[in-house]
Amino acid sequence: MIAEILSTGDEIRTGTLVDTNSAYIAQELEGMGVRVLRHLTVGDDLTELAAVLQEIGSRADIAVVTGGLGPTSDDLSAEAAASAAGVPLVLDPEALRWIEGFFDRIGRPMGDNNRKQALLPESAVRIDNPIGSAPGFHLLIGKCRCFFLPGVPLEMKRMLRESVLPTIDTLLGSGARPIRIVTTLSSFGYGESMTAEKLTGFDAAFPDIRLGYRAKFPEVQIKLYLEGTDRLKLEARSLEAAGWVKERLGGRVFSDRGESMPEVIGRLLVERGATLAVAESCTGGLISHWITNVAGSSRYFLSAAVTYANEAKSRLLGVSPEILLRHGAVSEPVIREMAEGVRRMSGANFGLATSGIAGPDGGTPEKPVGLVWIGVSTQENGTSARSFQFRYANREANKQMFAMTALEMLRRTLCQNS
Amino acid sequence: MIAEILSTGDEIRTGTLVDTNSAYIAQELEGMGVRVLRHLTVGDDLTELAAVLQEIGSRADIAVVTGGLGPTSDDLSAEAAASAAGVPLVLDPEALRWIEGFFDRIGRPMGDNNRKQALLPESAVRIDNPIGSAPGFHLLIGKCRCFFLPGVPLEMKRMLRESVLPTIDTLLGSGARPIRIVTTLSSFGYGESMTAEKLTGFDAAFPDIRLGYRAKFPEVQIKLYLEGTDRLKLEARSLEAAGWVKERLGGRVFSDRGESMPEVIGRLLVERGATLAVAESCTGGLISHWITNVAGSSRYFLSAAVTYANEAKSRLLGVSPEILLRHGAVSEPVIREMAEGVRRMSGANFGLATSGIAGPDGGTPEKPVGLVWIGVSTQENGTSARSFQFRYANREANKQMFAMTALEMLRRTLCQNS
Repeated sequence: MIAEILSTGDEIRTGTLVDTNSAYIAQELEGMGVRVLRHLTVGDDLTELAAVLQEIGSRADIAVVTGGLGPTSDDLSAEAAASAAGVPLVLDPEALRWIEGFFDRIGRPMGDNNRKQALLPESAVRIDNPIGSAPGFHLLIGKCRCFFLPGVPLEMKRMLRESVLPTIDTLLGSGARPIRIVTTLSSFGYGESMTAEKLTGFDAAFPDIRLGYRAKFPEVQIKLYLEGTDRLKLEARSLEAAGWVKERLGGRVFSDRGESMPEVIGRLLVERGATLAVAESCTGGLISHWITNVAGSSRYFLSAAVTYANEAKSRLLGVSPEILLRHGAVSEPVIREMAEGVRRMSGANFGLATSGIAGPDGGTPEKPVGLVWIGVSTQENGTSARSFQFRYANREANKQMFAMTALEMLRRTLCQNS
Repeated sequence: MIAEILSTGDEIRTGTLVDTNSAYIAQELEGMGVRVLRHLTVGDDLTELAAVLQEIGSRADIAVVTGGLGPTSDDLSAEAAASAAGVPLVLDPEALRWIEGFFDRIGRPMGDNNRKQALLPESAVRIDNPIGSAPGFHLLIGKCRCFFLPGVPLEMKRMLRESVLPTIDTLLGSGARPIRIVTTLSSFGYGESMTAEKLTGFDAAFPDIRLGYRAKFPEVQIKLYLEGTDRLKLEARSLEAAGWVKERLGGRVFSDRGESMPEVIGRLLVERGATLAVAESCTGGLISHWITNVAGSSRYFLSAAVTYANEAKSRLLGVSPEILLRHGAVSEPVIREMAEGVRRMSGANFGLATSGIAGPDGGTPEKPVGLVWIGVSTQENGTSARSFQFRYANREANKQMFAMTALEMLRRTLCQNS
């Protein structure tokens, strides 16, 4: 079964926005054994859109189209689909009810232009949107079953997973289909090229397993795709391959079930019944933000002090002004006092602190942009402090590397202290 | 002049890698006045590649193709281009010399398979690679001048900028080209649908201006695209249209030059020589993270207290434990004490505080998920406190709405106090 993926929208056509939907959809389809032949992108042009849908209709068995389902005059996917399929647009009363219900739920008035979103091709089967206002739909164009989803990634992924992939699964037929498992290893420490290089030889060692990478800076996810008829055998084989990968990456794999770093930290703290407080300078609140993205983090996360100004380091964390003056904020003595100070003052079991230079300004020859000190203070095993020198091109990348490295240092401490 | 962009490679076809090259190239071409009609992606398949090149050759004037110039058996772009153009592959001795020189420079032996990279279509004009081993090239396929570049972003961008774009510029001819300006208005407060609805009538009022939207939740960017020959006239017309938009959106436009909210906050604080401290509960560090993403924020941002646990609200901000007990953390009395506490204790001119329920747990009938109290404390004009009820489906969305609304409340206070 051949599939094509079409992303629509002027922001993608002109490159204002990078298309991440196509890669996501391609991975999901390929994971089901569907062969993705081609991706296309066109803009908000009715003629162009209808024409490319007809082309796809003559070539592929399945297509997934994203974008163009919104309420504005740029949103033309339903109209183009109807045109390509040679059917009229009709008002779907159920779709209209769903849209009205959506605006009701979020407590906002429904606009006139939202009515447009209930106009679907006559032959279309509606795909309800559990998150936003735009319903998706699928219909036959030429010989191709075309699925139309919103361009908003959150909505697209949900509807793909809950409606589209199961439908495609049915289309693939109910013959004894192989069992597929995907194992996701989350790693941090090597970039994508280096990770791939370290895993050279995987194909020879595991010719039965497809290896994939997903860059989620600063993480790299390694994905193992296995297919067979015996689930237990597959899981054992997956464990073997995961072990091989972990050994080659020398301790940089921090989860073998695709967890994010904050999720792992949360799990480790809960397992130990321990609490955490954070002192952030250069990371500016990013570590706390990541930690508090995890539902239930109030079980272990007490507080953070974002001590951007040096005065705040003294006032909120008890860092000695003399030490600040003598060594500067980005130094070992200061990071030790920050980590210990935040732990002691908050009553937490663990204190984590960062102090560095995210750039672009603020660097010196002795302390260049990209330098960070990280401290982890424990109740029973003292305080560890380390410095790292990164060289990323921009402030945001440096902040993310600093924050991720800090969490990795905390993770290793938690794993030791268990 | 019409262009198409083709990225090649199985990692992109299968979605293992997200294609960022196409967006980059599209932006550059559109910026030169070339209209990018379509993007395509195909895998490492000679037949498919040659076929799609012939299709492009019949449709476009210019094409930029990335990938498939490496030394492995998957690298088929030169062969496919030759096939599509109906010419043989020939060894380019200058290309071979260049590749040998590259390996010489990096002190590694040249592989046999690297010789393959010097085999180019007979009619091709070589584009030397200043960074890697693979030369690019351009040739005519059908009516289309097709440029072939490596897939490695760093190499692609350099060769695009140094060779391809100047060549395209020559092809465009030296006639008077129109001037293009893009005005970006950043807004917050209406969703994308409501924004579009409020701007109904724009096309009738300004038929010479193209209107676009960019959803950057929780912001909506409104983009005005003008084209003409007189820059001053265009700028005046843009101002007029921006004024019309601002009036329709009732104060929700916070920047007429595409600034982000934290950039605007930073600018307003610097203009007033004022400083800021933040107390975050439910937003967990997100506000501070956003603020500190702006280079130079240390000029006005002193510190933040992420007081996730109630005890931390008392310890770090001086919030009375009795008030916490009587009213709960998510209440007006507590938010006032948080905002005033953080301002007083930090010595900042302005204090901003948030306390709410991001979900999915923690809601009650009286205080549902999505409720947030926001306080802004000033030195001379007292403290304002307001509550908002949002109903977003997930924790991250609620956090972002809370944080953005808090910054907007601060922005309005700053604009009043000037």
